[in-house]
Amino acid sequence: MAIVKLMLINPNTNAQMTRTIEESALLCKSSTTEIKAVTNSTGPVSIEGHVDEMVSTPGVLEIIMGAREIYDAFIIACYSNHPAINAARELTAKPVIGICEASLLTACLLGHRFSIVTTSPRWQPMLEEAVRVFGLEARCASVRSSGLAVLDLERLGAAEVEDVLERESRKAIAEDGAEVICLGCAGMAGFSQRLRQSLGVPVVDGVASAVKMAEGLYALGLQTSKVGMFRPLEPRKVINMNGPMLEAYG
Amino acid sequence: MAIVKLMLINPNTNAQMTRTIEESALLCKSSTTEIKAVTNSTGPVSIEGHVDEMVSTPGVLEIIMGAREIYDAFIIACYSNHPAINAARELTAKPVIGICEASLLTACLLGHRFSIVTTSPRWQPMLEEAVRVFGLEARCASVRSSGLAVLDLERLGAAEVEDVLERESRKAIAEDGAEVICLGCAGMAGFSQRLRQSLGVPVVDGVASAVKMAEGLYALGLQTSKVGMFRPLEPRKVINMNGPMLEAYG
Amino acid sequence: MAIVKLMLINPNTNAQMTRTIEESALLCKSSTTEIKAVTNSTGPVSIEGHVDEMVSTPGVLEIIMGAREIYDAFIIACYSNHPAINAARELTAKPVIGICEASLLTACLLGHRFSIVTTSPRWQPMLEEAVRVFGLEARCASVRSSGLAVLDLERLGAAEVEDVLERESRKAIAEDGAEVICLGCAGMAGFSQRLRQSLGVPVVDGVASAVKMAEGLYALGLQTSKVGMFRPLEPRKVINMNGPMLEAYG
Amino acid sequence: MAIVKLMLINPNTNAQMTRTIEESALLCKSSTTEIKAVTNSTGPVSIEGHVDEMVSTPGVLEIIMGAREIYDAFIIACYSNHPAINAARELTAKPVIGICEASLLTACLLGHRFSIVTTSPRWQPMLEEAVRVFGLEARCASVRSSGLAVLDLERLGAAEVEDVLERESRKAIAEDGAEVICLGCAGMAGFSQRLRQSLGVPVVDGVASAVKMAEGLYALGLQTSKVGMFRPLEPRKVINMNGPMLEAYG
Amino acid sequence: MAIVKLMLINPNTNAQMTRTIEESALLCKSSTTEIKAVTNSTGPVSIEGHVDEMVSTPGVLEIIMGAREIYDAFIIACYSNHPAINAARELTAKPVIGICEASLLTACLLGHRFSIVTTSPRWQPMLEEAVRVFGLEARCASVRSSGLAVLDLERLGAAEVEDVLERESRKAIAEDGAEVICLGCAGMAGFSQRLRQSLGVPVVDGVASAVKMAEGLYALGLQTSKVGMFRPLEPRKVINMNGPMLEAYG
Amino acid sequence: MAIVKLMLINPNTNAQMTRTIEESALLCKSSTTEIKAVTNSTGPVSIEGHVDEMVSTPGVLEIIMGAREIYDAFIIACYSNHPAINAARELTAKPVIGICEASLLTACLLGHRFSIVTTSPRWQPMLEEAVRVFGLEARCASVRSSGLAVLDLERLGAAEVEDVLERESRKAIAEDGAEVICLGCAGMAGFSQRLRQSLGVPVVDGVASAVKMAEGLYALGLQTSKVGMFRPLEPRKVINMNGPMLEAYG
Repeated sequence: MAIVKLMLINPNTNAQMTRTIEESALLCKSSTTEIKAVTNSTGPVSIEGHVDEMVSTPGVLEIIMGAREIYDAFIIACYSNHPAINAARELTAKPVIGICEASLLTACLLGHRFSIVTTSPRWQPMLEEAVRVFGLEARCASVRSSGLAVLDLERLGAAEVEDVLERESRKAIAEDGAEVICLGCAGMAGFSQRLRQSLGVPVVDGVASAVKMAEGLYALGLQTSKVGMFRPLEPRKVINMNGPMLEAYG
Repeated sequence: MAIVKLMLINPNTNAQMTRTIEESALLCKSSTTEIKAVTNSTGPVSIEGHVDEMVSTPGVLEIIMGAREIYDAFIIACYSNHPAINAARELTAKPVIGICEASLLTACLLGHRFSIVTTSPRWQPMLEEAVRVFGLEARCASVRSSGLAVLDLERLGAAEVEDVLERESRKAIAEDGAEVICLGCAGMAGFSQRLRQSLGVPVVDGVASAVKMAEGLYALGLQTSKVGMFRPLEPRKVINMNGPMLEAYG
Repeated sequence: MAIVKLMLINPNTNAQMTRTIEESALLCKSSTTEIKAVTNSTGPVSIEGHVDEMVSTPGVLEIIMGAREIYDAFIIACYSNHPAINAARELTAKPVIGICEASLLTACLLGHRFSIVTTSPRWQPMLEEAVRVFGLEARCASVRSSGLAVLDLERLGAAEVEDVLERESRKAIAEDGAEVICLGCAGMAGFSQRLRQSLGVPVVDGVASAVKMAEGLYALGLQTSKVGMFRPLEPRKVINMNGPMLEAYG
Repeated sequence: MAIVKLMLINPNTNAQMTRTIEESALLCKSSTTEIKAVTNSTGPVSIEGHVDEMVSTPGVLEIIMGAREIYDAFIIACYSNHPAINAARELTAKPVIGICEASLLTACLLGHRFSIVTTSPRWQPMLEEAVRVFGLEARCASVRSSGLAVLDLERLGAAEVEDVLERESRKAIAEDGAEVICLGCAGMAGFSQRLRQSLGVPVVDGVASAVKMAEGLYALGLQTSKVGMFRPLEPRKVINMNGPMLEAYG
Repeated sequence: MAIVKLMLINPNTNAQMTRTIEESALLCKSSTTEIKAVTNSTGPVSIEGHVDEMVSTPGVLEIIMGAREIYDAFIIACYSNHPAINAARELTAKPVIGICEASLLTACLLGHRFSIVTTSPRWQPMLEEAVRVFGLEARCASVRSSGLAVLDLERLGAAEVEDVLERESRKAIAEDGAEVICLGCAGMAGFSQRLRQSLGVPVVDGVASAVKMAEGLYALGLQTSKVGMFRPLEPRKVINMNGPMLEAYG
Repeated sequence: MAIVKLMLINPNTNAQMTRTIEESALLCKSSTTEIKAVTNSTGPVSIEGHVDEMVSTPGVLEIIMGAREIYDAFIIACYSNHPAINAARELTAKPVIGICEASLLTACLLGHRFSIVTTSPRWQPMLEEAVRVFGLEARCASVRSSGLAVLDLERLGAAEVEDVLERESRKAIAEDGAEVICLGCAGMAGFSQRLRQSLGVPVVDGVASAVKMAEGLYALGLQTSKVGMFRPLEPRKVINMNGPMLEAYG
């Protein structure tokens, strides 16, 4: 069976979070899958809003430009409708998967409604909008902020983080009708197993979901459609650009 | 790596269609996956409406009852929101996947909007309702009937069927804005590769999608949520029942 | 004025509940209507999930097959989107009405938003999905579980049941904005009058609603459309079937 | 069995249309129902837009004020979300039913999707909005204008009108997926039987639907909810008013 | 720069509220705008439901008929989907703006979701329906009743009213996810500045929003579309009418 | 009256298009408004997809950083849900307005449904998604591609462009029920007047709409809400950044 080469891109510049993400991917990947995890070389150490998304995108796209001939699929490991995902889909026909959409589609197979338990309050409206863009609002029980900052996931002890996530998840189940919990941050990857035990419901990790979806699409020979939203970039005059993105404009 | 045992259940009683389905599964499965394809022993030779769904369900549930300790995941290979899917999810926590929902979730990763190209006109409203139940109406460009009967897929020559599917798919792309085509019948499994070539867009086969999703859920250790819609059957007095379903009521 | 013959089918095998249902129908029927209430001869004593719906369907369809020449309309007395309803609509053009949809359509005439107060928690997601399938989610304030089991409606004293239903209905009115309460179980038929008194809002019983809608459709000469979702069953080869459903396949 | 007194209010000032409406009601009413049809004494001879609705409303409300102690239910015979309907629901708890909503709710029992075939093009956006206000957009295949003016229904010969309605209905069935046709004007009441014959699908007349729904609600003892949108008018100081509406303000 | 003449119509007969409204308009208008505020001469002193809307409409339409040649745009200063708005759009092509829709469209530019804080509980379902008619439900966090009567806004001291509005707004922000508060009554115009200070979020006044939108449309030369919902009134025979509305029917 | 300083940012690097945009703004601005139009110094000469949006964003954000103390409001003159809009809203509380949302909100005041007539086919799915993100799908009749490339607007003669836009607009009106046309590209600014004449419906230019909305918000003292989706950027460690965006991270 052919080897699948997956590139896992952490859009923030936090190498420790890349390791967390990579571990989650390694734990679930098939034996015939190779994982290459890379950290963005430009931008903030966590993605917590629109500006963060924007300044992290050039780095992600440059990584894609350099790797698009080599890797079979790309995972953008930010739990959001990160704008680099759709942009990357214009740069290659190979599957580009965001960990948020991957986790929500996975959750749809496991129960009637899911809730996302995320970090800071700002993510709540952003993820509600993402759910709407993905067209999944009828399957979403709620988006709940745990009140944690993204970097708290590393700063605080695992037990403390787990307590907070468990408490918020229980509210989602009891008050909002959630049947499945989606962990709403790439940095939460390590918590899914233990939360599954304590909560007694499926807990979905976005990174792992994305790995399995990428492997699946590869095995099925399916690639991004190029007739509509993700047509290839048309060559055009550009100003003040250099490096891989200049090349992209042919 | 552990072996995954997938049971692929054809709810109709048409052994030839079971073979078509099995072939599609074998072509895409991982090397560590075992496929067992079974044909329903009760009901009509094709599923083309609500009564067909109903009379095919007892047979499917009996198969599940007999196999739920042995297999790791179950695929119900009827392209619809077949009521056996949700019922089976009450009988086991192991993943139960319908090929229609699997293909639509897969299509979401490949383009902005998908169209379903199905067989007879009756399936059009039934699949439109299914799309709504899955909560995916914002991602659906159209459901189109090809005018074929389910059994035409076997009766007619492959070239003729392919022509009809290609013509209807082209309309979906040109008139409805479809970027991805989902083949709306289990019996169409063999046509996805060639249509992909001729249409130039991703063409998704439900059976293959379901196999990859089942393998993915297994690898992730994810099972059906039991706190909401799919709680286990409560033991109760039943009348006039026998066999595995009597046992199910404990 | 011509006599209308309504058949009222209780899909569960609980004869006591059939009597409750029949009483509700007799109290509201026109003088020119004849009611025939029948209990399913196969399946569980209460319908509390998808498997219950499935195993109760063959019995319901056999009843319809035997009665479709004689009766003018059929009421399926399970408070859900019971799959036997749509299947029965394929077997006859005569109106087939589910008590859940009948009550919700009735409620639409009485206030801006209705709530369904049902029995066990499992019914909450199932009825939310039913409301969506009926296309009435914009008129639905909430679906609330009273925590009662279906069979509690008989086991507990009437006063106790009424207290529970009243308490949950008050929450629906005060917290969810419900203007009308729909009693979400066939077995609750007897409670509508008293709850109306105590709550001061319209309380809609599904069985009674369905009787009036069936009488209405009969008087208007309206029958199920046969051009789309409910086309007649096409004759086909079937395996391992016998009795009325074998005949249905011609 | 008690006599039900239904008042059928034609909001326009066209007595010929009142007779058409009354005939439709008399043909379908129960033997124990008395129909009183009244013509508005103020306003235009047809309702074809928002201004028409507005200037016809005071007359309708005065009729209701004078009749609310005597009649058991009121039907507002304009095929729209006529604002007099909700206003009347504040003046009495007795059922007030619009013929548009009544026909759409009836259609929901007969097929998956209905289309409205109406008169002039202006009604198309107005009825699309009405369908949305009623919350029934998921059940609506289309609203189609026949291009007729309301008064054409009387001016032209019946055969000619029927031809136009049939042609537009066929398009709704073939192109939009309609399974049921709702006749979108009170003045079309006489055409439902013949169209049903020629089209082979259920054709729903609003007046007749409203009569059966009014009889049904009366038999069920159900009245308009007074806790939300339709609370009774609060007594207040008014200026420059007289007659029944002055009294209404206590 | 040309002078814009705006007519601000208070549909109720409360001259004190007209002064409040006028003040709000004068504070925000451009130097080249002239404001003419008029009080309805017919109807109740406050608009608190459907009947109030109806009996206030003839007066509003007569004002429009008298002023449509003179003024450049009209503002209907009732915080609702007041039916006089759409009717007036048939009587003139000049912009006719309701203060509710104006405030909601303004709020869309300021945050992801808005809440409306209104007066009496009856307005809650009425404004929820209005939000749906405007098509803005995805942007609406909630409609909340403050429990105040419209006339309380004048009867009570400003501090007391402000306290109530602030309390309810805080709940909308904390519990419903509102990022912007829309003051849901024309009579609340004076409170927006102070609430903005105390709440720390944008607080939108409908009258002021409507003034700026009217000025904007005038500057852009944009008028109401006459090809669909707002076609001019067709001349027809009318009965029992006189004054300006008789003329309107030509 | 105070001077309002509006900065109009063209996210592409095409100075000729900046002049077109500036002209449109100058024609409609109030006498007390100052317009400063700037062209992005980095990126492609037209924005025609996701990558274009991404590579144009850093330049836009740097412009905002340099101007946020000086200007009163910012207009992002790309007809899309350009991601720089929301990012800019995090960098300043002063209004940031996209020309697409501005034109759609304006259109809502002029008719029941609008259509967007845009350039290349790729924009069709992108703008359909934008309409959904803005929550305006119920008001949108259609998004139609004219088949023109963005740069055709300059390359081709005005008459030719106008013909294409008129033809596509007529289809939107006749086939889709559009009452208002929104010109779906910043470069179409000059065509609105003539199309209004030829089509006989309101034709809305995004740049002009945004100018009036910006002036309106300024006059009302309204700024972006900072409690939800647009909280200020939190200071954090960043890597490999310099210039204004480095400062933004404090």
